[in-house]
Amino acid sequence: MGKVVALAGGVGAAKLLRGLVRVIPPKNLVIIGNVGDDTELYGLHISPDLDIILYTLAGIVDETKGWGVSGDTFNCLEMLGRLGFETWFKLGDRDLAIHIARTKMLKDGLTLSQATAQLCKMLCIEANLIPASDDPVRTKIQSRQQILDFQEYFVKRGTANHVTKVFFEGAEKAKPAPGVIEALREAERVIICPSNPILSIAPILSISSIKSELATLKAPITGVSPIVGGKALKGPADRVMASMGFEASAYGVAKFYGSLLSHFIIDEVDAEHKKRIENLGIKVTVTNTLMKSLEDSVRLAKVVMTAE
Amino acid sequence: MGKVVALAGGVGAAKLLRGLVRVIPPKNLVIIGNVGDDTELYGLHISPDLDIILYTLAGIVDETKGWGVSGDTFNCLEMLGRLGFETWFKLGDRDLAIHIARTKMLKDGLTLSQATAQLCKMLCIEANLIPASDDPVRTKIQSRQQILDFQEYFVKRGTANHVTKVFFEGAEKAKPAPGVIEALREAERVIICPSNPILSIAPILSISSIKSELATLKAPITGVSPIVGGKALKGPADRVMASMGFEASAYGVAKFYGSLLSHFIIDEVDAEHKKRIENLGIKVTVTNTLMKSLEDSVRLAKVVMTAE
Repeated sequence: MGKVVALAGGVGAAKLLRGLVRVIPPKNLVIIGNVGDDTELYGLHISPDLDIILYTLAGIVDETKGWGVSGDTFNCLEMLGRLGFETWFKLGDRDLAIHIARTKMLKDGLTLSQATAQLCKMLCIEANLIPASDDPVRTKIQSRQQILDFQEYFVKRGTANHVTKVFFEGAEKAKPAPGVIEALREAERVIICPSNPILSIAPILSISSIKSELATLKAPITGVSPIVGGKALKGPADRVMASMGFEASAYGVAKFYGSLLSHFIIDEVDAEHKKRIENLGIKVTVTNTLMKSLEDSVRLAKVVMTAE
Repeated sequence: MGKVVALAGGVGAAKLLRGLVRVIPPKNLVIIGNVGDDTELYGLHISPDLDIILYTLAGIVDETKGWGVSGDTFNCLEMLGRLGFETWFKLGDRDLAIHIARTKMLKDGLTLSQATAQLCKMLCIEANLIPASDDPVRTKIQSRQQILDFQEYFVKRGTANHVTKVFFEGAEKAKPAPGVIEALREAERVIICPSNPILSIAPILSISSIKSELATLKAPITGVSPIVGGKALKGPADRVMASMGFEASAYGVAKFYGSLLSHFIIDEVDAEHKKRIENLGIKVTVTNTLMKSLEDSVRLAKVVMTAE
């Protein structure tokens, strides 16, 4: 069996991935994670999307929120607030251990992908999680005249700003992390997880050699729509799609990815979009895409793995 | 009123200092803190003695232990343990905020004394806490053939090793932090807090210009014995004194400081040592030196401030 490569953002991706590792041997799964959301806070390197995947696959994620560590406390953050630091980014105490460990490894000279592999090992995760790049790629949000860091837009302002443009600082110089291109070449299937196409998947595609490798790939590329009934299941994908001139729908997402996709999986409530998406030259599977339970994730992962 | 300068270790010193700031205007108090115990853990700069003083003067210290933050949790540490890191140094979650903030400031180019002044400000501490040096001075413990880092000896091995020698790595090159010598010159009184003479005060005295400034000082130097009835109130001072060839008693401490002291305050149970210490040319006050309550600390601080 070849590799299965998944391009992944945060919460939505993690829900599909927790199903995938139960459907295929985890060692065969290579997850290419978004680092556009990465940030430095209090001198610590935070990789929010990688962490959501780490916590989910390690079985320690806060199931209610979909991010952070289950049952975490916020005493360090409270104290940082007392010291006068901003505390809008909700760093839990257990969560902090990961950021401290990652920052220490980076300080010791490891690359982000080496540090991520170490964290996977420490958390007994068998799947391969690789950040899209070891070089800094930072998602920036332009909101009319203002340019915001991603976390400023996403967490501090709660995605309230109207997004007029998104760009990926550093992308033009960034190289794929070791293993990314190799995994794509060995892939029997590539999956584009149900993540925000503009804010979570586009930063990965902004690295030109990843995008061109995908464009010429023989293996099927199967996407799962993050938009159901015109609404994002999580986050601002629908609003960002609309404000950037895309239709906020499963069709809009398919159109965004265009010829990259060979197959797109959409929800039953979006069955009406099937024909329009097929007209883009993309095969379509209609199924229940909601992943409330682990069983839902496993079922959807099976649909993804059998899409032809 | 001139400055009152206190040479300080950790728990014992902090108990006297919490009294002193209620007896004299805190702004007039300059605390020269021991940095020989400083260490780096998980990439974070930890200054245990400075922190004990910070937490005590900020009124957030864990009163039972004498160190750490009151009511703290240990969830980050537990998670670090799960990741495979050693966890013998008991870093609390609230405690961590200080180490994160300090490490960030040092990374941003502040000196340790600048970072300490910032932390004092953040915690609304009016007294001046200055690390003895901005340069690394590290207490090393020789135990027969073995050389241990201070925290390895003190925390990891619980002071179980027989101490044959103590030395202060970096001391010969270390300069006093800005303000230390100036404060001594402006001092109307210098206090040597009831701290371990060999492990907490000697690292300060190991910086030659501090020691020589003290040796030629006109202002009185008043010490308080950390040993009562032949026993250290806290920590291994008695055992270390004995293993290094000093008498483990109030007299032994007075002898260790020798001509540096103009006045020594000993406990009532040690009244028998009064004459012997006076024979060293040091004035002696006998009083109750136990500081169980804040009132005890205030009372002892008054005795220290009126010693003539």
